[in-house]
Amino acid sequence: MGSHLDTVIDAGIYDGCYGVLSGLEVIETLKSAGFVPARAVAVATFTNEEGVRYAPDMMGSLVYAGGLSVEEALATVSTDGSILGRELQRIGYDGSEKPGFRKPHAYIELHIEQGPVLEREGVPIGAVQNVQGISWQRVIIEGDANHAGTTPMSMRRDAGHAAARVVAFLRDRARNSNTPTVATVGCMSFEPNVINVIPSRATFTVDLRDPDEQRLQAEERAIAAYLNELATAEGVTISVERLARFEPVTFDETIVHLVEEAASKRGLASKRMTSGAGHDAQMIARIAPSAMVFVPSIGGISHSPREYTPDADLVSGANILLDVVTRLAAR
Amino acid sequence: MGSHLDTVIDAGIYDGCYGVLSGLEVIETLKSAGFVPARAVAVATFTNEEGVRYAPDMMGSLVYAGGLSVEEALATVSTDGSILGRELQRIGYDGSEKPGFRKPHAYIELHIEQGPVLEREGVPIGAVQNVQGISWQRVIIEGDANHAGTTPMSMRRDAGHAAARVVAFLRDRARNSNTPTVATVGCMSFEPNVINVIPSRATFTVDLRDPDEQRLQAEERAIAAYLNELATAEGVTISVERLARFEPVTFDETIVHLVEEAASKRGLASKRMTSGAGHDAQMIARIAPSAMVFVPSIGGISHSPREYTPDADLVSGANILLDVVTRLAAR
Repeated sequence: MGSHLDTVIDAGIYDGCYGVLSGLEVIETLKSAGFVPARAVAVATFTNEEGVRYAPDMMGSLVYAGGLSVEEALATVSTDGSILGRELQRIGYDGSEKPGFRKPHAYIELHIEQGPVLEREGVPIGAVQNVQGISWQRVIIEGDANHAGTTPMSMRRDAGHAAARVVAFLRDRARNSNTPTVATVGCMSFEPNVINVIPSRATFTVDLRDPDEQRLQAEERAIAAYLNELATAEGVTISVERLARFEPVTFDETIVHLVEEAASKRGLASKRMTSGAGHDAQMIARIAPSAMVFVPSIGGISHSPREYTPDADLVSGANILLDVVTRLAAR
Repeated sequence: MGSHLDTVIDAGIYDGCYGVLSGLEVIETLKSAGFVPARAVAVATFTNEEGVRYAPDMMGSLVYAGGLSVEEALATVSTDGSILGRELQRIGYDGSEKPGFRKPHAYIELHIEQGPVLEREGVPIGAVQNVQGISWQRVIIEGDANHAGTTPMSMRRDAGHAAARVVAFLRDRARNSNTPTVATVGCMSFEPNVINVIPSRATFTVDLRDPDEQRLQAEERAIAAYLNELATAEGVTISVERLARFEPVTFDETIVHLVEEAASKRGLASKRMTSGAGHDAQMIARIAPSAMVFVPSIGGISHSPREYTPDADLVSGANILLDVVTRLAAR
């Protein structure tokens, strides 16, 4: 096999699209080269990897790997009130195959890093060996709506203020630790959300990640303890709902090594790394040997119109995918 | 005049309605008693006293007193995008009289306290001698939307976290002072408001009140200084828009004294007090001698379905209004 890709994947690379388009390019290249695989090669794309409208994220691959029933997944209600199963029917993506109908011999996923490490270190290929654990929670704090002008500071039960304390606590704790723990409050809303009324309710999300399961659990306990203290100190009521929880995942050493070898043969530097984001590969790792290839994200930016990876890096990543798929399909 | 009111004002007393209904009751009582006033007595109600959809609050009385042009007021755009002038036309409240067409000899406003003081002290009548100054600002903080899993804590420009710091700063500063200063963040929104994305923008309001103008200015300077520090420390961009600003107002001593006298004659305890909330009376005070009467708010609750004042207190307040109007209209 002397084949390689030299076409730039020229669609918008918005996150996962890059992997899918590269997969199709790999299959076309294998066909053109007359390669006869020992095993079938397929390109997969899963429903609802992001989890923005429907929680949890990586839902399709989780269902495929048997971690969530298809009935439960299809009944999920979105942030705008729609139901996943009905929406899939509406757009014609409600397939008839059973989840997990094809159990792969091996699974490899190509993705932009979505973080700043590869660019900062000048390394074009990431050989992803594991994925952080993810804990998603929704927190609701309830206090008393009251008049902003007439209620003395000492007599308030201000849900918005209590929520702000949690945001500050999470950031200080994660920032001041020596661990790779990251904590983010991405969603926040106040009720009644009126300028001269003390908020009676604040609803927000907590996204907590760590590559170490014990540490992730310790962080979850620390948040729970802080919320308890805060409820007492501020006279507010706090409830917590778990939205998603995935343990850290270790990828298949053989495939990670194939990625490193492929990079080395093409004269490309590579780096073993942890994925900060969640990916479908971590779900499929439950049922098949899996790993990932990363390419640099300029400025670490993703989930933004400013997301960018240089053409040369996109082609390099697709070529590594080609090489690894060739090796995996040949035996 | 031996007349008095003995009817409970039995409509929902939601905030300003109590004053208007009592005013109508006063006029009916004066008529029934055959009272011939030396001056015309009118019940007034002003457009947009709350300022929830259209800023600033107390807009109608501000325009009436010449503090804002009627053209500017009618062009105000609401939180839902509608224009005040068109909305007034639509509901048939776009009158033809010029603002300030009738300059009152005296102005008196009856209102629930909306605070906890009268109830706590067991005093049925508040003789309101002044009103806190009010400063309303909208703050917009801009950072970088980025991936919650892949962006190390040290490399974030988190607009939501910066906003939370401001909420905590305001509350700590007001709570730890020995002054009556109150500070409230009632509105808050994050963008893009997605669970796994660091907020790129946080928009919130600051409601700051103090009966002393010098202190109110000092608080405004302290917030501005904190926002400057925060912008540097967090690498975020902060812009501030002034939504409303009213200096503290001192009411007319003669009318305040009439309120005290009326209470005393009816055997009711009264208390001189400061209004924590803004009221139309503070605008009309610019063009005519003005004052207010307060009745207790149970639990200090207002702007809530749980707002409540016992019937006896409602009747007492309306009787004080009757007595003071009788005195003011007789000379």
